[in-house]
Amino acid sequence: MEESNENSQFQLTDVLVESVQQLIESKDDSALHDQLSEFHYADIAEILEELNFEQSIYVIKLLDSETTSDILSELDEDLREKILENLSAKEIAEELEELDSDDAADIIAELPEERQEEVIGLIENEEHKAEIQELLNYDEDSAGGLMAKELVKVNENWTVTQCVREMRAQAENVTRVHSIYVVDNNGKLIGRLSLKDLLMAPNSAHISTVYIPKVDSVHVTEDAEEVAKVMQKYDLEAIPVVDDNQILLGRITIDDIVDVMKEEAEKDYQLAAGITQDVESSDSIIQLTRARLPWLFLGLIGGVGAALIMGDFEHMLKDYAVLFFFTPLIAAMAGNVGVQSSAIIVQGLANDDVKGSINSRLIKEMFLAALNGIILAAFLFLFVWIYKNDMYTALAISVSLVIVIIVAGLIGTFVPLFLDKRGIDPAIATGPFITTSNDIFGILIYFWIAKLILGI
Amino acid sequence: MEESNENSQFQLTDVLVESVQQLIESKDDSALHDQLSEFHYADIAEILEELNFEQSIYVIKLLDSETTSDILSELDEDLREKILENLSAKEIAEELEELDSDDAADIIAELPEERQEEVIGLIENEEHKAEIQELLNYDEDSAGGLMAKELVKVNENWTVTQCVREMRAQAENVTRVHSIYVVDNNGKLIGRLSLKDLLMAPNSAHISTVYIPKVDSVHVTEDAEEVAKVMQKYDLEAIPVVDDNQILLGRITIDDIVDVMKEEAEKDYQLAAGITQDVESSDSIIQLTRARLPWLFLGLIGGVGAALIMGDFEHMLKDYAVLFFFTPLIAAMAGNVGVQSSAIIVQGLANDDVKGSINSRLIKEMFLAALNGIILAAFLFLFVWIYKNDMYTALAISVSLVIVIIVAGLIGTFVPLFLDKRGIDPAIATGPFITTSNDIFGILIYFWIAKLILGI
Repeated sequence: MEESNENSQFQLTDVLVESVQQLIESKDDSALHDQLSEFHYADIAEILEELNFEQSIYVIKLLDSETTSDILSELDEDLREKILENLSAKEIAEELEELDSDDAADIIAELPEERQEEVIGLIENEEHKAEIQELLNYDEDSAGGLMAKELVKVNENWTVTQCVREMRAQAENVTRVHSIYVVDNNGKLIGRLSLKDLLMAPNSAHISTVYIPKVDSVHVTEDAEEVAKVMQKYDLEAIPVVDDNQILLGRITIDDIVDVMKEEAEKDYQLAAGITQDVESSDSIIQLTRARLPWLFLGLIGGVGAALIMGDFEHMLKDYAVLFFFTPLIAAMAGNVGVQSSAIIVQGLANDDVKGSINSRLIKEMFLAALNGIILAAFLFLFVWIYKNDMYTALAISVSLVIVIIVAGLIGTFVPLFLDKRGIDPAIATGPFITTSNDIFGILIYFWIAKLILGI
Repeated sequence: MEESNENSQFQLTDVLVESVQQLIESKDDSALHDQLSEFHYADIAEILEELNFEQSIYVIKLLDSETTSDILSELDEDLREKILENLSAKEIAEELEELDSDDAADIIAELPEERQEEVIGLIENEEHKAEIQELLNYDEDSAGGLMAKELVKVNENWTVTQCVREMRAQAENVTRVHSIYVVDNNGKLIGRLSLKDLLMAPNSAHISTVYIPKVDSVHVTEDAEEVAKVMQKYDLEAIPVVDDNQILLGRITIDDIVDVMKEEAEKDYQLAAGITQDVESSDSIIQLTRARLPWLFLGLIGGVGAALIMGDFEHMLKDYAVLFFFTPLIAAMAGNVGVQSSAIIVQGLANDDVKGSINSRLIKEMFLAALNGIILAAFLFLFVWIYKNDMYTALAISVSLVIVIIVAGLIGTFVPLFLDKRGIDPAIATGPFITTSNDIFGILIYFWIAKLILGI
């Protein structure tokens, strides 16, 4: 009892993994059980990720389902899928009995369809079964897909004594209490009773006289990202979910929202970096190729486009070869400016922070890009002038650069705003998509302007 | 009481903003007060962001400090700074009295140093003042910088009756109770009492017999990102903060961690997009230029480097002009592959998901890049062969592309791993940094290989 913060000190070391592996190989079940029972289920999940597949199965079959159900929830989807394939429908059903309805529904949803029904049929607790079946009907990216059925609710007509008695019974099934929701006789959400209020309230009070009639809620079909925004804005740790008639259906807790936010951030980041699917560095080369190749192919097409454009200007090669030397610079600047502008818009849209009309945004970006472009072009002008001792060529390249940067900034600003207006995720406009189109436009504009200035 | 989820239905409309503006102009204080009191403070903060500065000040001075203190906490840093400049030290101190110690300390930390002391001196509640002063000593990116002093703690030697009485008093100062921490006579954290346990426990029980001796905690100097990882991994909604002697100092709640995660994700995203500072689309052109120009300048230098390299190969221009047409393609592919590899590593490092040695990661990336490269090069080979009817040039360009992609992948993998080993944030290796270096290396390798194959 001296040193009680053992969890935060957990370290996944090679020594630890090896000792677990040795205990598995020597089939020393009681020692293995003793060692693992010291750890939090999230730590055991981390250990399993380091073991080979047979060893993981061994551990899962050894531990009781109260622990393994939580471990399964924590595991990487790939490993969980493989483990579930090796468990019988009965074994899976036993795991699910131990989980909250939302986690259980998430795991069932990952099973092949014919197995889903078999597993559900084997869940013994009828209420739990019905709750899971209900949750399976909701879209996984909606409030219904995030919510759990477990919550503490009390009727406005109860007395505090009745209420506390009922709550004690309900609380046994609820991992964390958070808020106590108050409903009317029809199950309609009419308010909440905070735990703090409960602590402060005199024991003799009546629910309808002590509850708070103001309560945030979200509709069951609300988009998960919207729920995350609401909870974050109002600093909520749980939010009740209601249907069209304001009937209380479930509640969403902040830990689910943290996961939504993290996934969202990772998805945006990966789109900006040109990776299409949700991949990790530990995934197979085939999986990683599938995530990376499409964007590279896009880049290839952009490059071929640029080459074709340059082929059209081949006649300028003899007298103005230096123009061609700066095409990678032009393409890179067009790409970078485009990515910068689109990233700022995408983030602004995610934070509901983009104010004013599209036109006013474009005008601002034009001035911004012009300012950046003129500063950069001044340096480039001096460099080319000194390097080639040809002021006209230096001027042509520099002026082109300014125009290219302005156009790139405008495209980077316009495309995500346009996609967003059309209801398409603007994050796809970042990364290789904008880079590629800006490469082509950039080089085309560059040669046009240079031709105009040099009078060819 | 019929429709109670009014907060989630809040919509910031032009009509709403105009009606608030009209009430301000006509100085109709009571109507303005009535209208605003319907809204959550987070909603009022959103309205203020739409008003001009004088109007915001008007609203802040009109409302009571209980509401305005929360509004101030929600506001954008820029606007808050401007408003605070227009409040007297006394007025600021009054706002801070209403806030939790962590929010109060955050606001004070933003004030100019000479004002900080003046404001602190005017805080009347001595305990609150001492708590804020303590919090100001911690690094803002540490557990100490995130924690609040407000929490509910009970002594192991108390009876449940004593405990409930003390808790009622403490709970008045605590916005959300979460967990009840159990300490010994020295203030050392020895366990916790969950609210659920409290609901279930018989009224006659003694604390030392009912508390849970297992409790996660973090050290006061722990890095904020580490705290976020721990809380996320163990699905915690609050975590106590202790010093070297395990003395309970404060607690961190999940809403602060949500903010840390969001900032971290935005920072990584901005670095990947080539934006150095924390900017928003609504910032001024000067601020945005300061955030964007350094990366563009880096790109400019890369482009100049590429131009110089091409200048060195000018003698190949006469016979192999087409080689030069594909330099933007080579630069783009090198950049894209580098960004992809580095993004996967940066995300893997953030999730503690990068396993194995640097060498094994590099070998995997080599195979991955080679596979992607060969597929892409096959297409390019066919295109150039058909386009120029010259198989050797097509071969030279395609083989070079494969090598360039492999090298780009290796650089993209190595640099973030190397930076991370050195204790530098690997996220700076994404975006323009990796793109620029890969542009230069890519073009250099491209011409070398092409020269070799074409036997020039």
